Amino acid sequence: MKVALVQRKYNRNSKKNLKKTISSIEKASLKGSELIVLQELHQNEYFCQSEATDFFKYANSWIEDVEFWSKIAKKYGVVLVTSLFEKRTEGLYHNTAVVFERDGSIAGKYRKMHIPDDPGFYEKFYFTPGDLGFEPIQTSVGKLGVLICWDQWYPEAARLMTLKGADILIYPTAIGWFDEDSKKEKKRQLDSWTTIQRSHAIANGIPVISCNRVGFEEDASGVIDGIRFWGNSFVCGPQGEIIAQAGKKETILYAEIDEKRTKEVRDIWPFLRDRRIDAYVDISKRYCD
Amino acid sequence: MKVALVQRKYNRNSKKNLKKTISSIEKASLKGSELIVLQELHQNEYFCQSEATDFFKYANSWIEDVEFWSKIAKKYGVVLVTSLFEKRTEGLYHNTAVVFERDGSIAGKYRKMHIPDDPGFYEKFYFTPGDLGFEPIQTSVGKLGVLICWDQWYPEAARLMTLKGADILIYPTAIGWFDEDSKKEKKRQLDSWTTIQRSHAIANGIPVISCNRVGFEEDASGVIDGIRFWGNSFVCGPQGEIIAQAGKKETILYAEIDEKRTKEVRDIWPFLRDRRIDAYVDISKRYCD
Repeated sequence: MKVALVQRKYNRNSKKNLKKTISSIEKASLKGSELIVLQELHQNEYFCQSEATDFFKYANSWIEDVEFWSKIAKKYGVVLVTSLFEKRTEGLYHNTAVVFERDGSIAGKYRKMHIPDDPGFYEKFYFTPGDLGFEPIQTSVGKLGVLICWDQWYPEAARLMTLKGADILIYPTAIGWFDEDSKKEKKRQLDSWTTIQRSHAIANGIPVISCNRVGFEEDASGVIDGIRFWGNSFVCGPQGEIIAQAGKKETILYAEIDEKRTKEVRDIWPFLRDRRIDAYVDISKRYCD
Repeated sequence: MKVALVQRKYNRNSKKNLKKTISSIEKASLKGSELIVLQELHQNEYFCQSEATDFFKYANSWIEDVEFWSKIAKKYGVVLVTSLFEKRTEGLYHNTAVVFERDGSIAGKYRKMHIPDDPGFYEKFYFTPGDLGFEPIQTSVGKLGVLICWDQWYPEAARLMTLKGADILIYPTAIGWFDEDSKKEKKRQLDSWTTIQRSHAIANGIPVISCNRVGFEEDASGVIDGIRFWGNSFVCGPQGEIIAQAGKKETILYAEIDEKRTKEVRDIWPFLRDRRIDAYVDISKRYCD
């Protein structure tokens, strides 16, 4: 199966941004991609750099947004993973991935479960933690274990998706550096991010797709300079082996996923066989003190 | 804190083998190592390549073995992580790590929980799965989350050790290649092994020590040629960053662990803060079908 990841810069103009994203989807579909993954909150700038109620306006178009991307998926005949700002009611919003089938129907949605809150990433202000659990989404290209950004640091999320039958793990994400950090610290952070996601592939014997933002976006509040999203979107196979990886430029990253290889690897390295489910109960505790 | 990992070849003679291991411990202690980690089942060859009741003889000396390593820990004044073949009664054996305090007292033991069973690694024949759970061991150099080999593929094990207060994760291990595998497959396997263990450091914000065997050991039964243990023992910090890594030769690998850095990283990347413990219950299921 051919997949495409659209790694893009936000260019301060939502309409132009949208146009470019659609043009990337068109290109990817013409190249035969069956599954296209967009980065986290791809419609707008990464507004969580500061806390301002004004940004809730971006969620006002939630219903229209879903209709819009449904039409795009149908037009290009692809399975499309989007990342949208969901308004459920006043004062209740989610960071939600909606997956569309080739015919434009909604295959399913996932509400981000793990919500970060760190300088520059004030997501707890905007997003109520998801209440749909870790449920993979059945599509014509397989059962997709869609998770979002901060979820990528949690082996529990990847494992639960796998136990529920996910064929692939998919992470739309928005992560980057602060310019003031040292070169070594930046390298450690990027390596950590790649390593933990590759490890989910390894532990669960399934491929991972991670689609990240790229480019500098300034902090509207001026508290920090801004975030330099590090790109480096990638696809890895079931042994965590990198199949394709982007750099720090806007790009459409293509990869071929070999379902036969996944099956082979899961039989050779049968980690699910030997899990000590009799001894895992404390994983549901905050801390064992 | 200075740690040392003793990565050794087995040289077909248990007495000579023992002598060399002790000489390595002596060297490491003279260099100021406070914590010394030995590889999995370091007293003998890796006998699990075939299934033969004759090998249970290696467990007959279990009580004497514990007394012996206790004296070694005391003699050199180090915290020592050993990996022994435990006889509990006739027909009931474990793959057990015993940790000794500097004064020779037993700090604690861990019985390998996840037991593999694959061609060349017939451990289910020899070892009853551990029944002590995932309990870190308190020592004068910190709370040690000792796990063994196959455990390294399970994020659950690393997480549970962390939730119970482990300061470091430690894996005595014995893993290697089959010569007939392709160069690419060997690379994928070694990368997987390093990546998954580095990911436990990242997910839990604590350093990882992994001490592996090295060198070729033939299969006594002649069914397969044997296993070429790949060495590559390593120590990584709480961001998964490699601090020291061995190659494919016998060596004593030294590393300095910086506890202050661990604390910093865990505050900057507070993954434990955001765990969705309300949504993890299915991790205790075999599969959600």
